Amino acid sequence: MTLTETPFTIDNLPYGVISTAETPTPRCATVLEDDVIDLSALEKDGYFKSIPGLKGDVFSMPTLNKFASLPKETHVRTRAALVDLLSDNDIRKKYAIPLSTVQNHLPMETKNFSDFYCSFEHTRNVPSWFVIPSVYNGRQSSLRISGTPIRRPWGVTLDSNKPNDPPAFRPSARFDFELEMGVYLSHPLPPGEILNINNAKDHIFGLVILNDWSARDIQTYEMAPLGPFHSKGSGTSISPWIVPIEALEGSQCNARVQDPAPLKHLAWKGKEDEATFDIELKARVIRDGKSYTVTETNLKELYWTPYQQVTHLCSAGEGLSTGDIFGTGTITSDVREEIGVACLLERKLERNILSEASKDGLDFLADRDEVIMEGWCVNRLTGGKFGFGECRSVILPALKEGSWE
Amino acid sequence: MTLTETPFTIDNLPYGVISTAETPTPRCATVLEDDVIDLSALEKDGYFKSIPGLKGDVFSMPTLNKFASLPKETHVRTRAALVDLLSDNDIRKKYAIPLSTVQNHLPMETKNFSDFYCSFEHTRNVPSWFVIPSVYNGRQSSLRISGTPIRRPWGVTLDSNKPNDPPAFRPSARFDFELEMGVYLSHPLPPGEILNINNAKDHIFGLVILNDWSARDIQTYEMAPLGPFHSKGSGTSISPWIVPIEALEGSQCNARVQDPAPLKHLAWKGKEDEATFDIELKARVIRDGKSYTVTETNLKELYWTPYQQVTHLCSAGEGLSTGDIFGTGTITSDVREEIGVACLLERKLERNILSEASKDGLDFLADRDEVIMEGWCVNRLTGGKFGFGECRSVILPALKEGSWE
Repeated sequence: MTLTETPFTIDNLPYGVISTAETPTPRCATVLEDDVIDLSALEKDGYFKSIPGLKGDVFSMPTLNKFASLPKETHVRTRAALVDLLSDNDIRKKYAIPLSTVQNHLPMETKNFSDFYCSFEHTRNVPSWFVIPSVYNGRQSSLRISGTPIRRPWGVTLDSNKPNDPPAFRPSARFDFELEMGVYLSHPLPPGEILNINNAKDHIFGLVILNDWSARDIQTYEMAPLGPFHSKGSGTSISPWIVPIEALEGSQCNARVQDPAPLKHLAWKGKEDEATFDIELKARVIRDGKSYTVTETNLKELYWTPYQQVTHLCSAGEGLSTGDIFGTGTITSDVREEIGVACLLERKLERNILSEASKDGLDFLADRDEVIMEGWCVNRLTGGKFGFGECRSVILPALKEGSWE
Repeated sequence: MTLTETPFTIDNLPYGVISTAETPTPRCATVLEDDVIDLSALEKDGYFKSIPGLKGDVFSMPTLNKFASLPKETHVRTRAALVDLLSDNDIRKKYAIPLSTVQNHLPMETKNFSDFYCSFEHTRNVPSWFVIPSVYNGRQSSLRISGTPIRRPWGVTLDSNKPNDPPAFRPSARFDFELEMGVYLSHPLPPGEILNINNAKDHIFGLVILNDWSARDIQTYEMAPLGPFHSKGSGTSISPWIVPIEALEGSQCNARVQDPAPLKHLAWKGKEDEATFDIELKARVIRDGKSYTVTETNLKELYWTPYQQVTHLCSAGEGLSTGDIFGTGTITSDVREEIGVACLLERKLERNILSEASKDGLDFLADRDEVIMEGWCVNRLTGGKFGFGECRSVILPALKEGSWE
């Protein structure tokens, strides 16, 4: 994998929402190498007119919700049409906008954002963890598109140097990232219904990289009894291009063996080698111009698969809405050395770090640090490698004391 | 308080969203006694034209978000105009729709729904509880308007009669209500900012009654380490009419004394007798045609006030959005006998119930039970009593086993 490789090959064709200086109205697009293709223009010019549901105004919407809500057949046919259209160099060039000139926007309008919680801080010691995937709700207002800076939060914490002092409201001193994937939903499920795991795939629109920013000192203090709130409230960053579930079919693979066996409603009944996805994930921190790779892991190492997660998510009759997104939880690698951690806290706590990388002085995130995450997969049918693009953000300093008074 | 009293007096004038058989398009309304007043019709006919921001299309929206986002001055002047207009009997009768004929809809479009957690199940034994109000995020898709039935959820639970058996996915056997108030927000706060508690009132649009349906057996099993998720996922009911903060000014009162004193950013700096609201709340269960009053309490008995709660809610820079709603948490009365509980579990666990009411056989909720909540307050300036109307829902039986397969 070299830096010159593009994540946006013809095997990928992800969906996003863009605007440009010339046309500031957000609309839907795909991207092939460095060419962003304005799908609203293609649609307006009648290229999708034989596809059911694409009536000329789906891709001119400011989000992908309308398109995502259309039947699976429409998604498959649109993708096939794009492969055809973009292999015609004249058409490609006619509709291309240079990638470096577009502004990305949140790709979907989201009602509900939930986050699974997989391997962090010995969750695996909680007995229920092997029976039900642990999950909590976040705030949809927290979602930020890659490139948006994240401000270090204030919160009520104990001073780790003076643990007997009373708690105080102060800027977080232990700000961290969490490397996850985000799963965007397509077709709704009505409230009150229960999802058959065999149908889970029909509700997934596609995947992005997700950084669940986490203030560890705020988290420690607030965690009991209700779980994280402010510690996750300062923002959740996502990569801008949704890689559709259809593009990931060539990267399906076996899931981990689960022991004990999952309860019936969470037991995968499809083909064994289509239970999850083989997606390599990586996170680095840029500090003072130097890049530190701190994490390398893979989605397939998650204990609970995305299909099990979405099935669990609505199992009390919550329903699913188009545009809902859930984080898979941090993905810790059990088969790698010190690099297989999903965040800085885990690196600190769980691994006996002795390598050169451990002497890098990276403890928690400093102001002006930039965190860059990326994900790559191989289409096992074509051998083609493609990626998710980057999810990157810079940490801004906390607000000055009393600036709100 | 008799059954013939109306909650919707001239001191109230709450806001809601309605549709009718003749005009199925949802639009904004208020209600006076049994007359629902179509505000979109009044606005269209020019009655609000001198009020800044009311340009003829605010009340024809299907939610109150646009109106709520307008400046405080607009809210105050609209209210004054309504008092004037509705004291003219000709105008009142011209725009009235009988209350019994309207269909209510969710009054606001909500991005974020959070729920505070106040007094239930010994939360007060957690040391941080007196320092930070406990809060978790819910799913906005869970919100249901009063009158919508709630289906008993399935979930992973232990069998209370056979606690050593492995957990199983089954219908909840311990379904409960929680009596709370819901606080709807008006003016947004940008992400990254911290709210000055002195300004908290400017962000509150109004209050409703809120029933946070809770499956206790699901909750017990899922609670560690992330707090409630599916146990609260089957629905959250709200009363349809938002009583505006301006109507509640006459019901302001002192808050409970807090010991230890709150941290500076949560310390109320306004007038002592304007720190919270005196709102009497009541819940009853209708079973087999018989009414059982199980709860009577008051918003003013909450440890944390709504102003402290909204200030805490965004203290990590979460921001606030117009239409966000938070539940105040269950309101347990410390000064009443067995009736001062906020849910059936608390009634069972915390009170030594010996009265006639305790022999009513109400343990947890049964299928077809109906829960009815109401709230009343007195305007201490005019002496007028008015209310929130009812929040009521019937429990539907759980889905049949395997019906989703």
